[in-house]
This record gives sequence, structure tokens and C-alpha cells, in this order.
Amino acid sequence: MNGADSVVQTLVDCGVEACFANPGTSEIHLVASLNKQKTIRGVLCLHEGVATGAADGYGRMAEKPAMTLLHLGPGLANGLANLHNARRAASPVVNIIGGHASHHNRYAHAALNSDIEGFARPVSAWTLSTASALTAPGDAARAVEAAQRPPGQVATLIVPADAAWTEAVRPAKPLPRPPMASSTAVDAVDAVAAALRRSPRSGLLLRGQALQEQGLAAAGRIAAKTGARILYDTLFPRMQRGAGRVRADRIPYFPEAAMEFMADLEVLVLVGTNPPVSLFGSPDKPSLLAPEGCRIICLAREYEDGVGALEGLAEAVGAPASPGAVTELAVSAPSDDATLAAATIGQAIAYHMPEQAIIVDDSGSSGFASHGGTATARPHDYLFVAGGSIGWGLAAAAGAAVARPDRKVVCLTGDGSGAMAMQALWTQARERLDTVTVVYSNRAYAILDVEWARAGLGNSAPASYFGLDGPAIDWVGLAGAMGVEASRAESTGAFSDQFAAAIRTRGPRLIEAVI
Amino acid sequence: MNGADSVVQTLVDCGVEACFANPGTSEIHLVASLNKQKTIRGVLCLHEGVATGAADGYGRMAEKPAMTLLHLGPGLANGLANLHNARRAASPVVNIIGGHASHHNRYAHAALNSDIEGFARPVSAWTLSTASALTAPGDAARAVEAAQRPPGQVATLIVPADAAWTEAVRPAKPLPRPPMASSTAVDAVDAVAAALRRSPRSGLLLRGQALQEQGLAAAGRIAAKTGARILYDTLFPRMQRGAGRVRADRIPYFPEAAMEFMADLEVLVLVGTNPPVSLFGSPDKPSLLAPEGCRIICLAREYEDGVGALEGLAEAVGAPASPGAVTELAVSAPSDDATLAAATIGQAIAYHMPEQAIIVDDSGSSGFASHGGTATARPHDYLFVAGGSIGWGLAAAAGAAVARPDRKVVCLTGDGSGAMAMQALWTQARERLDTVTVVYSNRAYAILDVEWARAGLGNSAPASYFGLDGPAIDWVGLAGAMGVEASRAESTGAFSDQFAAAIRTRGPRLIEAVI
Repeated sequence: MNGADSVVQTLVDCGVEACFANPGTSEIHLVASLNKQKTIRGVLCLHEGVATGAADGYGRMAEKPAMTLLHLGPGLANGLANLHNARRAASPVVNIIGGHASHHNRYAHAALNSDIEGFARPVSAWTLSTASALTAPGDAARAVEAAQRPPGQVATLIVPADAAWTEAVRPAKPLPRPPMASSTAVDAVDAVAAALRRSPRSGLLLRGQALQEQGLAAAGRIAAKTGARILYDTLFPRMQRGAGRVRADRIPYFPEAAMEFMADLEVLVLVGTNPPVSLFGSPDKPSLLAPEGCRIICLAREYEDGVGALEGLAEAVGAPASPGAVTELAVSAPSDDATLAAATIGQAIAYHMPEQAIIVDDSGSSGFASHGGTATARPHDYLFVAGGSIGWGLAAAAGAAVARPDRKVVCLTGDGSGAMAMQALWTQARERLDTVTVVYSNRAYAILDVEWARAGLGNSAPASYFGLDGPAIDWVGLAGAMGVEASRAESTGAFSDQFAAAIRTRGPRLIEAVI
Repeated sequence: MNGADSVVQTLVDCGVEACFANPGTSEIHLVASLNKQKTIRGVLCLHEGVATGAADGYGRMAEKPAMTLLHLGPGLANGLANLHNARRAASPVVNIIGGHASHHNRYAHAALNSDIEGFARPVSAWTLSTASALTAPGDAARAVEAAQRPPGQVATLIVPADAAWTEAVRPAKPLPRPPMASSTAVDAVDAVAAALRRSPRSGLLLRGQALQEQGLAAAGRIAAKTGARILYDTLFPRMQRGAGRVRADRIPYFPEAAMEFMADLEVLVLVGTNPPVSLFGSPDKPSLLAPEGCRIICLAREYEDGVGALEGLAEAVGAPASPGAVTELAVSAPSDDATLAAATIGQAIAYHMPEQAIIVDDSGSSGFASHGGTATARPHDYLFVAGGSIGWGLAAAAGAAVARPDRKVVCLTGDGSGAMAMQALWTQARERLDTVTVVYSNRAYAILDVEWARAGLGNSAPASYFGLDGPAIDWVGLAGAMGVEASRAESTGAFSDQFAAAIRTRGPRLIEAVI
């Protein structure tokens, strides 16, 4: 058993089941080991950004660590933007990077030599280059533990090629999964309860586990008693919503809308999140979005048990045993004659989407417009580009589909964001993943046109920097070239029909919605 | 005049003429400034890896700094792998990254916040976040100076959004371009001359400027007198070759072949390069490729004037006034009936390629096989993926075409490497660049199949990790979907005809050579 075998067996023993990979020569012994076992599914990606985006989507839906296998510093570098998204999403991801053999690493001028740890650090909570075949299995177990440290982290382990090919010790035992701590602010529940009792103009801002069914139910109970609003961040990792669930309201994207949305708040309770700030700073607006004078209290930090804290709070305020109101199913087919636009697309998706679908949203300006449309659809999970780095959706959809092959994945992407991760379509075809991609094809980085006007720079943003219409990307041809069946919709009726057909059929599909 | 205007005018005054961009909201004032002037050509890219690869190709051919405009940390992160290649190529590249406004930057949890400088450092010789609108123009001039420090460097300047939108001082004056130093080893010429006189079993290993016409001519003179061989690195940034030029020989890719190739050397003279090492370390071979006992002497470091040093050396050894032999034109059309393979493709390219073409090679296993075919073609420049990070060629070809619109660019890419940078095709179409792309479509990361066998891992490498045939990428469809006219060749005759037609026609073309 060489180091690679021992590392891979350790990862298997630690519960790793998926490896999103674009390996090279320095990972070849790890590939050989992966190829010998059947537990970890190898998913080849044409670009490392697809591998890391898929790992993020997988981590969010599987709630267990995804593994990536990337080639030296440049391979890791290609995956960093989606690791930034994974970091913001608190996804458990273990990057395994093959390093040069120790005796080769001393040649700084070797073409592929680079500061791998330097690349890794800005996105990784835990980074290590293992010393040898003897330390590699134990360090692999530590990497998995680090990735599972609440609420979930990116861990990067560099395995030098000689640590992989040298005779090794037995696989390491898995380390216990670090538990989610109770809220460290021991009197937080009492303080929050008192504040909520004093003011009905309050909000509960939820993120992480608290945005899943159980946390939302507790929040609904609190709301029923205190009148608190239930809110979530503009950019969030994952939430459960739709019929039968307690409804939460999203903080709007643009800062003035967000400030108006929260203008009435006297108390804002944070559960697994931070004080809301705008995505960008503006010359004339504060970054903090809560009104001046609003008291912001933390019920649970992101690494603490937000669901437990909410349930404790519900008891403390004397909430009823069940939430006052849950979402009722409300979907309707859009009129076939309606102009095809973000809103009608959202309506059609909501109408046709099956129960327990997973929506993966990287669709920028259009997505914000159609997000509301699915709020009262059948119960589903919704993943959003948590780090704001576009070029994530197509990849994350692939990962979510690997994590949950029993559920339909609906990927919403802009043409700008989709183009950044177009290679993911190939992986969707190769693995026959059950994904439907909707491309909001507006032939522009449309959000920048809006920001241009907002910045007072004039009416017509420069197409030379923001336009995607010269040439327009032919998404049907692009998808077909990578093995994904695709169609184009230019009317609401056509979109509705194509989406309904895609839902009925298993396997990857893409619809270019020309808006 | 705001900070953005002043920065952009400074860049114009410093001689910047091309900006490879994928901007976002934090760069919007820089875009507004760029949009107001006519000197710097804005080239929009669908992925930041395309922008940085294009900047590398541009820098190598223009020999002046390329500018990139990238969005915050994640945008820079997406461009890092090709910046690694640019660093290894010593390309002059100035990255301008829009940062968050200073008052926003303090919120570590803002979704798009990240350690931008941390991302930049592994690839940048110079990294700075400018303080304000007052410092920004001067720092922009310093960034250009840093990029031009011999032999060429990557410089990264972060411009916070408020430094861009705030009223600023006048543009900064350009700093003098740092001169190439003479060799610091004052007696290097004499020492090398003495060594060459003592042993005819010697080699001159050239890189950088020394691999262009003038340096090669000096090396040819030295060779005529001393019998020294003229060599170049396996992975090199740029060379001039073909008819009328002194021929150099490339160190083979695989270490045992490289060692055999150099086995006779008693003296190896380095000109602008380092002692040759293999790309990867192996269990049973040294990384250093020169034979034991071979005396390695440095004539000029990479930041020193290698051409001047070679000319001094030619005088010191009493070389004749002109090189003994230069390459004679030798091209021949391959037989239409020959099996389509890397060798026949190389032969057809050499036959049809016009004078002063620029070959951009990111084609892995196939490229090594066809490189020799063009050695006796009409005079041309040859760029290679200097950092070994694939996913560079299609982007670098775009940049080279922007730098030299008067010359035909021939891009050689594998399907694996091409797939990593497929978005570059869109930029080639958008800018109507005069590029012909040849995809060696072998439906595999074929180099890894070879490495698999070499590592003793068996005969059949695992298609699940190395195979690109499930599904095969339809390159004709892919290129067409992004606006590039394309065709497929499955025979030598078809390839020859399609390549000849592409050479005759201006504008981007792609040929999928199924091998």
C-alpha cells in the first residue's frame, strides 16, 4: 500500500463519496488509487472551476465533504473563484492537490512550480502540505475533519508526488465530526426574548441550517408570538422553501431598496449570519443596511447551533407549538401570449417544477426578478451564489445532482455567468445528471448596465465592455456540442412547453430563454 | 478628473494600448474612463483566464505591457493560472483590479470581500493596493514600470472603488523603462570563452531575447567557431525560427530522452535561463537533466542582456562575422492519403503557413510530435505554454493577434487544453482576429495516458479520469456557437485543404483534426 492508496482509503473511511477532478501527472498515483475502489465516484471536469463549483453544490446538498482533485498550483488557481463561493457558503470541501515530489520541489524555476499554499490560503480555513507517505493518511483524516468543522469549511491538503508513490502506513482512522456548539452567548436567548417582547418591530435574519425546514418552523413560532419578521440574506447558501414551509423574505439586492425594506426594524436578531451589508459600497450610502438605532443582537454565530437557539427562543417567548402560517401552494401557468421575461419564466418554472426540486441560481439581474415566482411552488431547496462570484451555477448544479440523484435540479443562469462555466455542460452530459438549465439570454452583463445608470454614468453603458451580443452565444449549439440536448424559447408558450418537457424527461437539458 | 480618469490617462501615457477585460461593479468608473479614450483597445473576455492568457500572448508579441481589468478577488483568481504562465514567460502584464470602496472593505463578511493581495502574490512580482485617488495615478505608473522590469513581470494594482470615483490629481508622468543590465558576472564572457575553447562538447542554452533572430545569429557565430550546440528549453516563452535563421534544438520533454540528448555535454552555457530540470520529478531519476560532471556556467541571467553577452562572447572566441549555417526553407505537402496524425498535421502547417506567422502552441502530446515539422518553414515566431499550465493557447492566440494584426496567428491546441479556454473563441470572433486554431482532437488527456504507462501503472489508463470521449466535444459546433467558422478534418487531404483555405482567408477559423 503506497501513500496514495492509504490516503484514498482514509478518505473512503471518512465518508467521502465524490471526487470532482481534473488531475495531471503529479496526481497520477492518486488517480490509480481512486480507480481501484468503488466508493468514491470520480467526476471528471474540463476546468477546475467546474470541479470546485460542483464540490460546493455537492457539499451544500449532501452535507458531507466533497473532494476535489486538482493539479498543482495552477490547477488549484483555476478553482479558486468557486472555492471563494464555497467558503462563503460554508460548504465542506476537501481539496487534494498533487504536489511535486520533494526532491523536485526545490527547483523554484521548474515550470509548474508555484506557491500552492499561497494560492490556497485566501479560500481555505485549513491548508497543509503533508510531509511524506507516513503523514499523508493522518493529514487526510485531519483535512476531512477541518472541512466538517461547523458550519463547514474549505480544507486544502497538498500531497507531494513522492508521498503518494512511497510505501506507506495503514489508512488513518476517521476523526470524530466536530459538533455544532451551542450558542456561546449564554444569555443570548434571554436577551433576545426580552428585546422581542419590548418591540414588535423586529426581524429574525436567518442563514445556514436555520434556513432549513426545522429552523424556519421555530422562527415561524416566534413570529406568531412576537410579530417578528423572518428575513434572509440577499446572497445565501441554501434555503428550504415552498408549500408547507414557513415563508421568509429576502433582503433586496440594491442598497436603497434593502434599507427601505428594513426601515421599520428596531431589533434585528442574527441567526448564523452577520449584520447585513450591501454587496458593494457606494459614494453616498452606508454599507450597513439596518437603520440607525436598530439594535442588532446575535442569537447564534454561523458555527453555532442556530436551530437549537431558535427553538430555545421560541420556548422563552412562549411561542405556540406550531408556526402561525405556512406557505400554501400557489402556482399558475403563465399566459402563452405573455412576453417572455424573468417574471413569466419564474412563473412557468414554479408551475411545472416537481416536488423536492433543487434550484441553483446564478442568474444575476434576471434571477432577482424571478426568485419570487417560486416562493409558493412545491417544496424545494434553493441554492444561491453565496460569494457573489458568477460562473458557479452550471457547476454547482452538476454537484447538487451528484449529491441528490433522486431530485430534479433546475439551474438558472445568466448568459454572462453561464459562459464562465460553460464547460460544466460536458460533465452534466458525461454523468447523465438530471439537470435542467435555463439560460436567461439577454446578451449582456445586464446587472452592469443597471449599475452604470445607478452610478450616474449616463444612459447607455458601453457595449464594448458589457455587451454579449457581438456575437450572441448560441446556447443551443454550445450545449449540443458538449452532449446536452437543448432548445431555444422566444415566447412564454414555447418556454413553458420546453420546460415542462424537460421536467418530464430524465437527464441534462438546456433551454435558452431569449429575453 | 476623477481617480479612474487619471489612472487611465496615466496608463495611456505609459504606452498601454490593450486592455483585456472582464469588469464588474467595482471597476465601473474605470470602464467609464476607458470608454472615453481611444488609445487603449478594450477586449472583452467571457472568462478572466482568457483575459490573462491574452495579456500574456499580447505581452510576448508586443513587447510592451498588456493591461487586464478584473473584478475583485474572484475575478483575479480566475485569471491566476494564465498569470502563472505569464510569469514563467516573463511577460509584461499590468493587472488592474477594482477593489471595494475603503469604507466597505472593512466588512470582512461582505460577500465579495477576499484577500486580493493574497491571490495576487504567488504570480506577481509587484503587488499594491493604492491608498486613494491621490496615490492611484502614481501607483499606476509604478505598476507599468514594474511590469517592464527586465525581463518582464506581472504587476498587480488594486484600485479601490472610492479611489476611482473621487476627484484626483493630474495623471502621473511615465517612469523611465528600466534598462536591461549587462551581465553582472563581469568575467563571464572570458570564463565561458575559455571553457568553450577547452571543450568542443558544449552547448549554449538560450531563452528570452536570446532566442530571437539577433541572439540566434550571435549563437550561430559562436557555434561556427567552437562547435557548441544551440539548445532551448522544452517549455519556452517565444522563439524566432524557420528559414534564414540559425537553428536551435529543443530539449526533449521526457527526462530520459532529455538526458540522452545532453549526455555528451561537458560544458553548458546558460543565456537567460536556468539549469534544465524535468517538468516533473520521478521516483528513479534526478530532476537535473545535464550529465553529472557537466560544467554549467551562466553567461547572462534572465534579467540581463543575453544578446549583448552572446555578441561579446562571439568576439571573445574569435567567431566569424556571420553564422556558419542558417536554416534553409524545406517544406513539402503531406500525401493526401497519409494517416492524419500530429506529424502530417505539422507537415501541412509548415507547407501552407505564410511568412511571419505566429504559432501559439498549447497542444501537449501532439504538439511535441509536430513541433519539428515547422522548424524549416518560412520564418515565424513560436510561442509555447511557458508555465506548463494548459488552457492558455486559445487565449494567448487572441492576445498575439491583437498585438500583431498584420500577422497570421496559428494556434495549436489539444482538446483537453482547448476545452479549458474555449471561451476565447468568442473573443476571437468578437474582435475578428486573424487566427487559425487547430484542435488535435484525440478525445483524451493523452499525455496522461503516456505518463500512466511510464509510471508503471499498467497499460490502460482510466478513461474515467483521462478520457474525453464520453461525450466527444464537437469542436465545429462549439466554435460555431461562439461565432467562429469551423470545419472537421478526418484525413490528411481534408486537413491540408481546410488549413490552406483558412490561411487564405482573414478572420478566425477553427479546424478540428480528429486524430
